[in-house]
Amino acid sequence: MTGRVKIKEALAQGKPGQELLLKGWVRSVRSSKGVTFIVLNDGSNLSGIQVVAEPDLPDYEEFSRVGTGSALAISGVLQESPGAGQALEIKAGGFEIVGAADESYPMQKKRHSFEYLRTIAHLRLRSNTFGAVFRLRSALAQEVHRFFAERGFVYVHTPIITANDCEGAGELFRVTTLDPVRPPLVNGCVDYAEDFFGSATGLTVSGQLEGELFAQAFSDIYTFGPTFRAENSNTARHAAEFWMIEPEMAFADLAADADLAEAFMKRLCRFVLDDCAEDMNFFNTQIDQELIARIEAVANAEFARMEYTEAIERLKKAPVTFQFPVEWGLDLQSEHERYLTEQVVGGPVFILNYPKEIKAFYMRQNDDGKTVAAMDLLVPKVGEIIGGSQREERLDVLTAKMEQSGIDPASLWWYLDTRRWGSTPHAGFGLGFERAIMYLTGMENIRDVIPFPRTPRHAEF
Amino acid sequence: MTGRVKIKEALAQGKPGQELLLKGWVRSVRSSKGVTFIVLNDGSNLSGIQVVAEPDLPDYEEFSRVGTGSALAISGVLQESPGAGQALEIKAGGFEIVGAADESYPMQKKRHSFEYLRTIAHLRLRSNTFGAVFRLRSALAQEVHRFFAERGFVYVHTPIITANDCEGAGELFRVTTLDPVRPPLVNGCVDYAEDFFGSATGLTVSGQLEGELFAQAFSDIYTFGPTFRAENSNTARHAAEFWMIEPEMAFADLAADADLAEAFMKRLCRFVLDDCAEDMNFFNTQIDQELIARIEAVANAEFARMEYTEAIERLKKAPVTFQFPVEWGLDLQSEHERYLTEQVVGGPVFILNYPKEIKAFYMRQNDDGKTVAAMDLLVPKVGEIIGGSQREERLDVLTAKMEQSGIDPASLWWYLDTRRWGSTPHAGFGLGFERAIMYLTGMENIRDVIPFPRTPRHAEF
Repeated sequence: MTGRVKIKEALAQGKPGQELLLKGWVRSVRSSKGVTFIVLNDGSNLSGIQVVAEPDLPDYEEFSRVGTGSALAISGVLQESPGAGQALEIKAGGFEIVGAADESYPMQKKRHSFEYLRTIAHLRLRSNTFGAVFRLRSALAQEVHRFFAERGFVYVHTPIITANDCEGAGELFRVTTLDPVRPPLVNGCVDYAEDFFGSATGLTVSGQLEGELFAQAFSDIYTFGPTFRAENSNTARHAAEFWMIEPEMAFADLAADADLAEAFMKRLCRFVLDDCAEDMNFFNTQIDQELIARIEAVANAEFARMEYTEAIERLKKAPVTFQFPVEWGLDLQSEHERYLTEQVVGGPVFILNYPKEIKAFYMRQNDDGKTVAAMDLLVPKVGEIIGGSQREERLDVLTAKMEQSGIDPASLWWYLDTRRWGSTPHAGFGLGFERAIMYLTGMENIRDVIPFPRTPRHAEF
Repeated sequence: MTGRVKIKEALAQGKPGQELLLKGWVRSVRSSKGVTFIVLNDGSNLSGIQVVAEPDLPDYEEFSRVGTGSALAISGVLQESPGAGQALEIKAGGFEIVGAADESYPMQKKRHSFEYLRTIAHLRLRSNTFGAVFRLRSALAQEVHRFFAERGFVYVHTPIITANDCEGAGELFRVTTLDPVRPPLVNGCVDYAEDFFGSATGLTVSGQLEGELFAQAFSDIYTFGPTFRAENSNTARHAAEFWMIEPEMAFADLAADADLAEAFMKRLCRFVLDDCAEDMNFFNTQIDQELIARIEAVANAEFARMEYTEAIERLKKAPVTFQFPVEWGLDLQSEHERYLTEQVVGGPVFILNYPKEIKAFYMRQNDDGKTVAAMDLLVPKVGEIIGGSQREERLDVLTAKMEQSGIDPASLWWYLDTRRWGSTPHAGFGLGFERAIMYLTGMENIRDVIPFPRTPRHAEF
């Protein structure tokens, strides 16, 4: 007998009659007519494998009493499974209890609420739902890297600790090694010159500005790393720590940016359908029965493109009453976004060229003097999923815009430098990785797609 | 003419006579006998491409005066290059100055010191050295994901903000949103119940403990994310923020751990030699002329394995004088490590089973009562590059070890839970990603392999 084989591999490549060594954890045990059935799961797939033991198994009594959650090694022979569900099972020829679990094990087979499972986030991993979520999260992250690698995009690790915008902004977590009780003061303010980095520092909210620096040397780049918001909001869609994907392309305009976002979104949809089929079927059955149809539709759609100005006109003509006002110059709310993508377009749509007053200082001013080259990708069921823009590449326009926005140009001298020498039209977008996972799995709370979520008053594990 | 092609692709797949559109930045300009030569670089490769313009080019005068650092679009025809260095060049038929650069551009063609270039880290990316470093860093990161994906390892995003070990440990950066000048106090101490997370929090130093939780559900997992040390040390090998790769395997012992580390290290060496050949040749010429031979040797080596006890004996018999004492029970210093790998073994070597007193509480106690199942991988030129261990899977032994180490078992209840139900022998290791890049490129300062390094008093960009 050779070494241990993963269950996914055994089921995919094994043949009846083959001898195998499997290792994993017991998901369930039942005995019927003198035969014991155990579902063994090693995390490589959702279903695990059925282990069948008959009384001629050495130490059969011990085997039949093994507890849910125990770690087992099983040697045996693959055979065709007479039951429904899967083609192969393993007939146990020998076993070892690697690590026992008794009745106190909290993940006994029964339904637990997602709320309760968050309090045992170290054990919820051993359930079907969270096994599927975190297998998919991993596979999707690896696919993100493949997508960009194939296109020659350079992966950049932008800094987590940043001194940008750290004096004031309420959304930033402060990072410090100063004495917490008696910090050094100058004129009643904290003397950050004494802090570890010699200045006030916090946790980054985006790698975009540094990403732009890289795009001006490598043409096409992307970041994929953690970002932070110190927002004290307890919603199902906000976490204090989350991962973001931010590509940036030099020599690219807003249309090229939308092209990339469309290709990227379709690729992620196609990938989970094709490569995470077992887990996706589970989500479609247990979480959201329209999931696969919705993801399939996005994967196959030609994404529409609509000017913000037209979107406002369409919303004004809509035969529905919105909670929030619709007026040129106001931002779109979730209800407006969903109406546009679900009712007006009936599929994914980019909204392009927003009023400059509601968008960030770095977005490129259009010739109309009123709008900037911003885009949001809206998809059915959630509304906005990707936000991006062409960046302002003109030094004078950007400097003036920073001054109008109350940002000291001297504080971002390095950012302005890229517009000083060899500036290029460039564009990029951001996708919150957890938002993508929620969209692709149907999971409705961001706390349930992050291994150990950080939210107000919660930093356990 | 079709759209823009990247220079790397044009050189690899283009044929003489083919019309192309290239975009990039001017690295150098020279005129000779009425012909102008520009080296254009778009970040896709090291060398860029030579652009040749003759006086019949429309606006030739403007072209011949273009400044180093300018962004250009060039349309033209590929032709065989008569000069040495590369087989193809492009004869310009038209051009556009996308973004000009004048004489004030700091990256004019001449040598700058690495120290100076750190002060313009946003522009050093446009040099040969840092172009090569960050292309290789990106390619290597993508290869890390491929290596683990192929083996079915689940990628885990372990938390960056952590409440573990945050009261006291000097190496931790504190993360807070409390009033920095007048924090809430209880009995003279900061009242962290008032802080964002309701407890003292800091930046993680390792994802290992959370990684172990995942291994107990998915068998084989890895982390690849940022980690932090608030050490006030200004050395060439320490940064406050760096990326770490930490695989963890359930049902695995120390030997399996070393097997994985060996396969991983060899794969990274083979990858940069084969897939980053142009950049590696540059490092071999400009940075370290023994680099390729050294990496080649590691890629082809069978890694030796030696007990710590034997290593001490070998060091005691060594015909050299060490600065630090050699005694069973003391940790190995860099000079000892290098002697073992360079002089004793003449290649990579794992040192196994260290005295328990000098290793962490979570490492598995061996039956001799004196050592733990720890391993360090030593490689020529640097000494230790990977550190790992088999973890203590026995609840009673681990709890006792925590108490001896002054760690309250209640504070890591979730970690102990994995030993309570379905515990397995498991093992893992950590590789500092920057240390790996330094080893593979010959770069000697960690500040020169991180896009925007964070070190004491430095958090610029």
